[in-house]
Amino acid sequence: MERLYIFDTTLRDGEQVPGCQLNTVEKIQVAKQLEALGVDVIEAGFPVSSPGDFNSVVEISKAVTWPTICALTRAVEKDIDVAAEALKFAKRKRIHTGIGTSPSHIKYKFNSTPEEIIERAVAAVKYARKYVDDVEFYAEDAGRTDNEYLARVIDAVTKAGATVCNIPDTTGFRLPNEYEEKIRYLYEHVDAFAAGKSILSTHCHNDLGMATANTVAGVLGGARQVEVTINGIGERAGNTSLEEVAMIFKTHPDLGIETNINTTKIFPTSRMVSSLMNMPVQPNKAVVGRNAFAHSSGFHQVGVLKNASTYEIMDPKDVGIDEASIVLTARSGRAAIKHRLGINGIQVEGDQLDKIYQDFLALADKKKEVTDEDLLVLAGVDRSTDHNVKLDYLQVTTGKGIRPVASIGLQVANEHFEAAASGNGPVDAAIKALKCIIKREMTLKEFTIQAISKGSDDMAKVHQSVEYKGHIYYGFGTNTDIVTASVEAYIDAINKFRN
Amino acid sequence: MERLYIFDTTLRDGEQVPGCQLNTVEKIQVAKQLEALGVDVIEAGFPVSSPGDFNSVVEISKAVTWPTICALTRAVEKDIDVAAEALKFAKRKRIHTGIGTSPSHIKYKFNSTPEEIIERAVAAVKYARKYVDDVEFYAEDAGRTDNEYLARVIDAVTKAGATVCNIPDTTGFRLPNEYEEKIRYLYEHVDAFAAGKSILSTHCHNDLGMATANTVAGVLGGARQVEVTINGIGERAGNTSLEEVAMIFKTHPDLGIETNINTTKIFPTSRMVSSLMNMPVQPNKAVVGRNAFAHSSGFHQVGVLKNASTYEIMDPKDVGIDEASIVLTARSGRAAIKHRLGINGIQVEGDQLDKIYQDFLALADKKKEVTDEDLLVLAGVDRSTDHNVKLDYLQVTTGKGIRPVASIGLQVANEHFEAAASGNGPVDAAIKALKCIIKREMTLKEFTIQAISKGSDDMAKVHQSVEYKGHIYYGFGTNTDIVTASVEAYIDAINKFRN
Repeated sequence: MERLYIFDTTLRDGEQVPGCQLNTVEKIQVAKQLEALGVDVIEAGFPVSSPGDFNSVVEISKAVTWPTICALTRAVEKDIDVAAEALKFAKRKRIHTGIGTSPSHIKYKFNSTPEEIIERAVAAVKYARKYVDDVEFYAEDAGRTDNEYLARVIDAVTKAGATVCNIPDTTGFRLPNEYEEKIRYLYEHVDAFAAGKSILSTHCHNDLGMATANTVAGVLGGARQVEVTINGIGERAGNTSLEEVAMIFKTHPDLGIETNINTTKIFPTSRMVSSLMNMPVQPNKAVVGRNAFAHSSGFHQVGVLKNASTYEIMDPKDVGIDEASIVLTARSGRAAIKHRLGINGIQVEGDQLDKIYQDFLALADKKKEVTDEDLLVLAGVDRSTDHNVKLDYLQVTTGKGIRPVASIGLQVANEHFEAAASGNGPVDAAIKALKCIIKREMTLKEFTIQAISKGSDDMAKVHQSVEYKGHIYYGFGTNTDIVTASVEAYIDAINKFRN
Repeated sequence: MERLYIFDTTLRDGEQVPGCQLNTVEKIQVAKQLEALGVDVIEAGFPVSSPGDFNSVVEISKAVTWPTICALTRAVEKDIDVAAEALKFAKRKRIHTGIGTSPSHIKYKFNSTPEEIIERAVAAVKYARKYVDDVEFYAEDAGRTDNEYLARVIDAVTKAGATVCNIPDTTGFRLPNEYEEKIRYLYEHVDAFAAGKSILSTHCHNDLGMATANTVAGVLGGARQVEVTINGIGERAGNTSLEEVAMIFKTHPDLGIETNINTTKIFPTSRMVSSLMNMPVQPNKAVVGRNAFAHSSGFHQVGVLKNASTYEIMDPKDVGIDEASIVLTARSGRAAIKHRLGINGIQVEGDQLDKIYQDFLALADKKKEVTDEDLLVLAGVDRSTDHNVKLDYLQVTTGKGIRPVASIGLQVANEHFEAAASGNGPVDAAIKALKCIIKREMTLKEFTIQAISKGSDDMAKVHQSVEYKGHIYYGFGTNTDIVTASVEAYIDAINKFRN
């Protein structure tokens, strides 16, 4: 197996996303998680760009042990001086410098000539090598740079001491076969790569939805480093997703490529980045989306239950997810209904199953998702146990200039309880009131509101996950009132607790 | 140019997503939008699966004129009878039938043999041809089916009358070069394709993030139909995104492939599907994400302002978006600050710009996004005009078992106004109260709440778009209280209105 180096740029290229900026404490938290995930290089920032960025590179350098810490610069001496200063505490350090090489960059951005660009590139690499042994060069907009000229640039910088050469498809324009051909051309026309003096790196953007495929194509063409971000975040349509690339090489061992990624840390890392950067991961995101391992069609559910290999190419456990959840919808088959009732301790067969299945189909046509509770009602089971919590009433007052307060009435095991509490927001107040009644050690782990709508009076959908006794329970609520929907989602999760 | 047919399965494979089920009225709305977008085939449902699905296929068949309406079946006579009945009002109709062909499907799902599978496939196609002239065959899990056997299956069904042969990568496992090779193998080993009697179709899933690249590779290998969904929705990690494939062939005319898609309808269609299905599109989604055309880094902003071609490979107008929005963050450069102040009517140069830029960097290090208003304050501009609306106080009471009510105090042009109203939810009530004070003809078009968090007391981020006099204005609000954040986002949009 050949080793592929993972260069994570979540904290630099990812962090350029509007609204995703992190403070230094948050960046250190992400960097330590990336270290646990097993990335080889952490691009920690662009030190000359702002005092905050400089400081983050300094603090990440102190906090992290194994990965190489990399700092971005332009091909400008001052940038390189500042980057070297920021990296002074790093155990392993790299300076990442470079310049645009496409005709459009040379003409409009630098008002320069191809020969002058080569001189500036070589000068920057040599200057950086005075400070550090590990210097990466980027040829910005390499995707739109002619191969013959690009090979001359890359040959010159490797001779000047560049240990890694990054070939970014800055605009996300290239097709996989074109990008693979470009990387292969460079590998074949620049001596340093076959000689083991430098390696090629991919850096792909997702503007046309092909960043991952381009990255894999680049590796097939000879690249041995990939620049990626968690959840594929990054400017515009984002960068290549670390998790997708890691799982492609894991599920395709025939490609002969291995990484140092501990894939079971993928899901927790994805959630941490999504949460800290306030960037939602869409439910159908590959590998880490909420639905990535959910099967709902009748066809597929029969398949999954008969043999997981029929539809699953990855085990959810491999990426750190507890188990594949099967959501019941109008497309669910008999086998899924039987399986789900079985999980709830109800065994049904033959005519009884047929009857429940027909009732289920009629209900599913009306309701978008059928819950376990609905199914138990269809099966004629009354679950008025003491786990059964119902929302009797809720009154919450919130706004600007007042302290949010909630009054709640719950039915627990057919008995009525009331409580009140205040909090930082209406949902916080309501959940605090609820916890005055239900005194279990439970923690809200995840909280997603989908209120995409045509107007302010549309339905809100709330998904929550609640941790209780080491297990994660998922709850769902829907209501025209986002506060009520949130509380109902919490109660839905509580009603699933197993003791 | 060769014509590529677009087969949209948003209403069938897309609609299998947990929580995405639509009612018949909503499905008709999507189908008419797909017709306006220019798709060639609409897969309208799987009629035998439920009475609701049957009825939707009937009603879509009546509502739509130009696209072919397609109905899914298994290789089972009863399914085909029901599909033919559901399609009876369609002007152009297609039955889509098929069976699993991979070893795992043959063994675990059908408990059958390869030869018997071919017999069942041929029988289903012949049976469907009794009802309609246009029959598509799918070889489920073709991605994991050996090419030689697959060619035998496909040859047999084309001889039985299949006009389209769909080669699904059901598990999303294949790499682009492998999938291209599979399609090319079939094109070269089955006579019907070169003879023009049948065409090959791609159907790719996104489990490893390569659905779009696989689809394009399939077209390069000889496929002339692609099966896609709006926003790439679909089970697990979803299907191939229609918008990505359409824009790849539009931006790469050298590939010699054209579609009938009117790309300016892409963005409105994306929003309609996201809204009706309650499926958020992540901000960094290619082509249709909120950030897809947003540039925020200093480097890039200079480039975009000097010449859009430096960083943009698509014009936002091509996909139906008003204009590229430049969001100001810690990475924004001097040129972006100058440009943004210019839009707001403030011209700054030299030392004055340097001073504002330094203040801006310090502020941007603390704040994740710097607003126009912040920038105007830094530039020493007081904007207490009559457009300037401020939230003085807000009090909202909501919950379960009560009618949401809001009382609001606003400062408009330094004068204080108060109003109250009730609504369906707390945000609806608050916005209705606001509209009692600000009586403009404005409509909330889009409303997204991101409240991904570690607990109930974390910050909520709200994005809204408000239409006023034919223009769309974006507003943003953040608060620990989701209701206040929503109202602040609305006011933020109002403060951007140009008269």
